[in-house]
Amino acid sequence: MDIAKRTTIGDIAKRSGVSISTVSRVLNQTAPVAEETRQAVLKAISDLNYKPNLFAQALAGGQTRTIGVLTQNLGSHLYDVILHGILRGINGSHYSSIFADGSWQADREINALQTLFARQIDGLVILGGIAPEEVLIEIASQVPLIIIGRDIAALSGQCLRFDDFQAAYDATQYLIRARHQRIVHITGLLSHNDAIERRNGYLQALKDAHIEPDPELIIEGDFLESSGAMAVEMLLMRGRVFSAIFAANDQMAYGARLTLHRHGLRVPEDVSIVGFDDLGYSAYMIPPLTSVARQSLEIGEIAAQALISLIKGEPFTLPEIQSTLSIRESVAGR
Amino acid sequence: MDIAKRTTIGDIAKRSGVSISTVSRVLNQTAPVAEETRQAVLKAISDLNYKPNLFAQALAGGQTRTIGVLTQNLGSHLYDVILHGILRGINGSHYSSIFADGSWQADREINALQTLFARQIDGLVILGGIAPEEVLIEIASQVPLIIIGRDIAALSGQCLRFDDFQAAYDATQYLIRARHQRIVHITGLLSHNDAIERRNGYLQALKDAHIEPDPELIIEGDFLESSGAMAVEMLLMRGRVFSAIFAANDQMAYGARLTLHRHGLRVPEDVSIVGFDDLGYSAYMIPPLTSVARQSLEIGEIAAQALISLIKGEPFTLPEIQSTLSIRESVAGR
Repeated sequence: MDIAKRTTIGDIAKRSGVSISTVSRVLNQTAPVAEETRQAVLKAISDLNYKPNLFAQALAGGQTRTIGVLTQNLGSHLYDVILHGILRGINGSHYSSIFADGSWQADREINALQTLFARQIDGLVILGGIAPEEVLIEIASQVPLIIIGRDIAALSGQCLRFDDFQAAYDATQYLIRARHQRIVHITGLLSHNDAIERRNGYLQALKDAHIEPDPELIIEGDFLESSGAMAVEMLLMRGRVFSAIFAANDQMAYGARLTLHRHGLRVPEDVSIVGFDDLGYSAYMIPPLTSVARQSLEIGEIAAQALISLIKGEPFTLPEIQSTLSIRESVAGR
Repeated sequence: MDIAKRTTIGDIAKRSGVSISTVSRVLNQTAPVAEETRQAVLKAISDLNYKPNLFAQALAGGQTRTIGVLTQNLGSHLYDVILHGILRGINGSHYSSIFADGSWQADREINALQTLFARQIDGLVILGGIAPEEVLIEIASQVPLIIIGRDIAALSGQCLRFDDFQAAYDATQYLIRARHQRIVHITGLLSHNDAIERRNGYLQALKDAHIEPDPELIIEGDFLESSGAMAVEMLLMRGRVFSAIFAANDQMAYGARLTLHRHGLRVPEDVSIVGFDDLGYSAYMIPPLTSVARQSLEIGEIAAQALISLIKGEPFTLPEIQSTLSIRESVAGR
């Protein structure tokens, strides 16, 4: 299906001269809209022959007591733990769940969504992904929807956001307070929003401490161990001076740590490391890794419970998810 | 649904005086059965009012181009990587997949199967799990089925078995050839068949090398890091002498390694370690961990492709999956 050729909510917003959020409110009937505005939106819908039924099968079957979950990257730890949390969240609820995977690729994501809708579901959890906002708003107008890890303004009450910026800020500040100034940041793939947010949190923490960020100390990784290992290899080869590393995830921190070991550098005596995600393995690293803990299980659980409330028409609020720093033994003061 | 109260294939086998495999052959029409035997089975089916439609909805919807996958323990690395392999296997095939989780619990597993069947699927991959053989045989009589990680004699052509025994044998033998004699084995949960197979492989390798197994050196773990750490703590506290550890998975090997570190014991100079599963992280341990590699991605891929062949009625054979030892730096000769 070629989404690009269909009339979208964006087209309607443009034609009726209102925001996408307003179109969403008219379609979803989630909040009052001035009658004049509402009529303008409805006229645009009619003029453009807009059919809000991309996923209309979702509505066909009545209650199936099944929730669909769109995930990304089966086999990647963080997302899989969130899925596990979703299972915990529906446990005891008489709901079952089915999962499909979008692999962070637009075509597979649409395919996975269609697969879920064709199988009839009462509600949907979307975990990450890259579907355009308009598609998500359209889905939300047709089926109860909770979104994890993205922030769609028009659906803010249904989005469970990660606090990547703040968590990265806190992790960097922790290193600064241990008197580190030359702090390397190994980023994630900068095509991913979470990687950008973490880098921005790192930069802000430096600025707030009046430390001039050094672009030489920021290396783009790809979230995998090998890129962390390679980043440190490059830094050492180029003779960069640093006393600490903040890696945008634990896997890259593991890679960085191995390269330091290969070069006879001790952690934390010579170089301190902080990771991000606090994978189960990190407490068993040598030395145990200090890392940002994301409460992934709880995130999944909260999302599933919120979705069931939404399906039942019961009130719910999504709490702000706050990461914490699991402090272990990979950071030393200077 | 209470499976226990239904007439089962076992009841039919008993009543008609033949094996379950024979009943399966009659139901599945997968292999010729003597006419007399076939009649006896059919009579028993009729007498007992057996309805082979526990999952009859699976047949109702014609081709949906969707395959269902029953998994266990979302959030546990090995299974999630196999799921990722299944996605790779269907990539480019015009098939989509949906997943449901059984959590290694009988009631959830039945629930997950029913959820998948109610959503209409053309075929099914079952990954691990504890459903009774008879249930699996019944499912196989109604829908194309591939089973990963279990060995059901009556469905042997559709089972992709792991070689746990042989892989554990080889890992232990590798330690013996490095002249270790006092080899600890930290087992998995001995309620799981794979844990039993690995322990048996370990025992056989010792016997074949004329080393008397010492029950004091075999500690039951639970597949988690903490149990590996605890096992070594106990061994040291009790003053056991050992020069090597074979852990039934990598997570327990990580835990064991941390406890050795806490006690000032070096790996591999003082104690050698071999793990099992070769998780992505293991190549980045300090030192990089020697571990049994299971080709999990390939297992998923092969299973998915075999299922599609089965759905299309095309011939296929399931290769024997052979684990290999990823040799790194955690073992030293004595």
